[in-house]
Amino acid sequence: MEANSAVALFLALGIIILASRIAGALARRVGQPRVLGELIAGVLLGPTLLNLLDLPVFHGAALQGTIDDLAEMGVLLLMFIVGLEVDLSELAKVGKVAIFAGVVGALAPVALALPMMLAFGYTWQPALFVGVTLAATSVSISAQVLLEIGVLRTKEGNALLATALIDDILAILLVSLAVAITGPRGEVNAGELVGIFVRMGVYLIAAGMLAWFVLPRVMNWLADRPSLEQSYGVTAFALVAMFLFAWSAEFFGGLAAITGAFLAGVGLSQTRARLRHQIGDAVSFIAYGFLVPVFFIDVGLKIDLSAFPASALSLSLVLFAIAIVSKVGGCGLGARLGGFNNQESLRLGVCMISRGEVGLIIASLGVTAGVLTPDQPLFSSLFLVILASTLVTPVLVRRVFPHRSEAGANA
Amino acid sequence: MEANSAVALFLALGIIILASRIAGALARRVGQPRVLGELIAGVLLGPTLLNLLDLPVFHGAALQGTIDDLAEMGVLLLMFIVGLEVDLSELAKVGKVAIFAGVVGALAPVALALPMMLAFGYTWQPALFVGVTLAATSVSISAQVLLEIGVLRTKEGNALLATALIDDILAILLVSLAVAITGPRGEVNAGELVGIFVRMGVYLIAAGMLAWFVLPRVMNWLADRPSLEQSYGVTAFALVAMFLFAWSAEFFGGLAAITGAFLAGVGLSQTRARLRHQIGDAVSFIAYGFLVPVFFIDVGLKIDLSAFPASALSLSLVLFAIAIVSKVGGCGLGARLGGFNNQESLRLGVCMISRGEVGLIIASLGVTAGVLTPDQPLFSSLFLVILASTLVTPVLVRRVFPHRSEAGANA
Repeated sequence: MEANSAVALFLALGIIILASRIAGALARRVGQPRVLGELIAGVLLGPTLLNLLDLPVFHGAALQGTIDDLAEMGVLLLMFIVGLEVDLSELAKVGKVAIFAGVVGALAPVALALPMMLAFGYTWQPALFVGVTLAATSVSISAQVLLEIGVLRTKEGNALLATALIDDILAILLVSLAVAITGPRGEVNAGELVGIFVRMGVYLIAAGMLAWFVLPRVMNWLADRPSLEQSYGVTAFALVAMFLFAWSAEFFGGLAAITGAFLAGVGLSQTRARLRHQIGDAVSFIAYGFLVPVFFIDVGLKIDLSAFPASALSLSLVLFAIAIVSKVGGCGLGARLGGFNNQESLRLGVCMISRGEVGLIIASLGVTAGVLTPDQPLFSSLFLVILASTLVTPVLVRRVFPHRSEAGANA
Repeated sequence: MEANSAVALFLALGIIILASRIAGALARRVGQPRVLGELIAGVLLGPTLLNLLDLPVFHGAALQGTIDDLAEMGVLLLMFIVGLEVDLSELAKVGKVAIFAGVVGALAPVALALPMMLAFGYTWQPALFVGVTLAATSVSISAQVLLEIGVLRTKEGNALLATALIDDILAILLVSLAVAITGPRGEVNAGELVGIFVRMGVYLIAAGMLAWFVLPRVMNWLADRPSLEQSYGVTAFALVAMFLFAWSAEFFGGLAAITGAFLAGVGLSQTRARLRHQIGDAVSFIAYGFLVPVFFIDVGLKIDLSAFPASALSLSLVLFAIAIVSKVGGCGLGARLGGFNNQESLRLGVCMISRGEVGLIIASLGVTAGVLTPDQPLFSSLFLVILASTLVTPVLVRRVFPHRSEAGANA
């Protein structure tokens, strides 16, 4: 029997998921976040070293397209789960600090990166995308460190979770805006910009109301049919909601598909607690056991660090400096304005340094929109900055917080 | 933002999963098995009626390839779960009847269909595939009916589960053989046939030992690392085992990939009970909530019943007669030889009539191997026979069994 493309895909997926898990476990061993190991594994499997998908064993099967599709589904699931975990009542308690820190902390990277990129000779479209990419904090890494040193359930810990959520929402909206105004024609006039905003606004209101008021009721009703629950109907309908909202965000709203997935998650977070956990469990199995590892490895599969020119090193260092200053300064300033004292503001700002999956998602949306190119030094620089920010965060967070306990060290 | 292919895929998947769930629920409403509704939904979405993937909303995106890949992963998961549910000790209790009924019942369709197809003017390759397609019983439909009328935990019920399992294993081996000897060159000589058997045998022994002795120990060991279990490592490694065994079955053994997935499932059924349930739950979410609906709909997406010629009706009726006679007669005879009395043998034979997912899997492997073509009347005939066998089974089963209860009617 000749190897067909599906069988080659099975081998590729087996290797990709295995490599991702092993690398994640190794990273945890040396006290680093799992995602760091997974990203490095992706780079090693990619053209930088192994060039996995071009190995003779794959018989030249065209796998990249399907793997990209699986990775994009992984991204949707990630954002859907973020939405599912939103707890607006908890958020309201630290609302003022979180809003100030989130807004200033999301705008500062754009405000710093945009002029700097222009100074480096880039046009405004990639400059804007770089800013937005650096706007999105990855809360999981800091949250894990705070958990390890026993200070997650503190004022700063709660503020971190709330700020990161606002930060995520703003980053998603900013990238939708960036995608819309950096369209294929390159330039938009003021009238078109207003049109884009109106379209986004109308979609967000309509889809938001649908997600908030209709979706949880439909799901609660469905879950009451016993035959449905037993046969994975709840999982299936959660995926249906995620896929259709994701599609509609782009088709009707001109937004990024992840915005729709996020909205579907927020809507379904309003279902009964037991049902919400059931959805979360099911979707997490699909996400973390299957598709998210594919996403993290897929990022590395597209990057060729062996082709990274020494001349791009200065750009990387500048972007790295912006990544740190914009969050420590931006979130710190915002937190101070929101009522935190100097020490608390500094701690919150440091916790917000690490970038991760959302930054990578935004960078790959830049690729889809034709603004960034994976084999450009700029894309590699962004990738390195995200890696580096993930590397320094645990060290810096441990430095600014008092240690209370070393228990619960699993991610 | 221009619609990219991933966003079109999101819409297609949303529609496919939704249609599959609604059709399955409607089928249950009218007392039919869920899979029947899902297959009919696939036909309605396909070229027979709607021609979903050619609708203008998909902007001509080439989705069929990715959807086929997802469907094939769904097939792997189905066979993996069958393997995971194997309980060899339970099986041994009804072993003699099951082995006789399983073997005679799996060979009878081949023995009847092969000469009949040759008489219809087909070559031996499609004739063999039709026989093997009709060899595979879908136990879930009969099991569900027995559950509904309260006789699943009887002598015949246990024998049904065991016989269907043996039937599945034989069908998988038969299709591997059929794929191997109906290769692109069309004919094989005796020496090559021996080579094929030796290669299959060596692979099955080696992979079987690996699956049986090594895989459960590796998984037990992995599950003891606390950081792994918390972060979906068990799910990920189960998928890795499934994908790599599936690939190796074809690459090393010349067998169908589903054989490898099945072996991986049998191996992991030997893990600790809690772990086995954990794997089963996780994989079932991915299978039944996501990829299996894609498979059932995908079968229909490939069939154009509107092009089904009236001249093929006689073939369909003959195949349907063979489907019924070969199971009632074949399994019944086997059961009688194995020690059942006449009534028990008839009941077991009737329970084995319904074909379903495994038959469809085998038919699609015939397509992959280039022996069957989806737009041929023969493929449509096979599909109709599988549908019809699924339709008549609940009626006939209820007729030959005494009714004890109508409780537990959910599938």
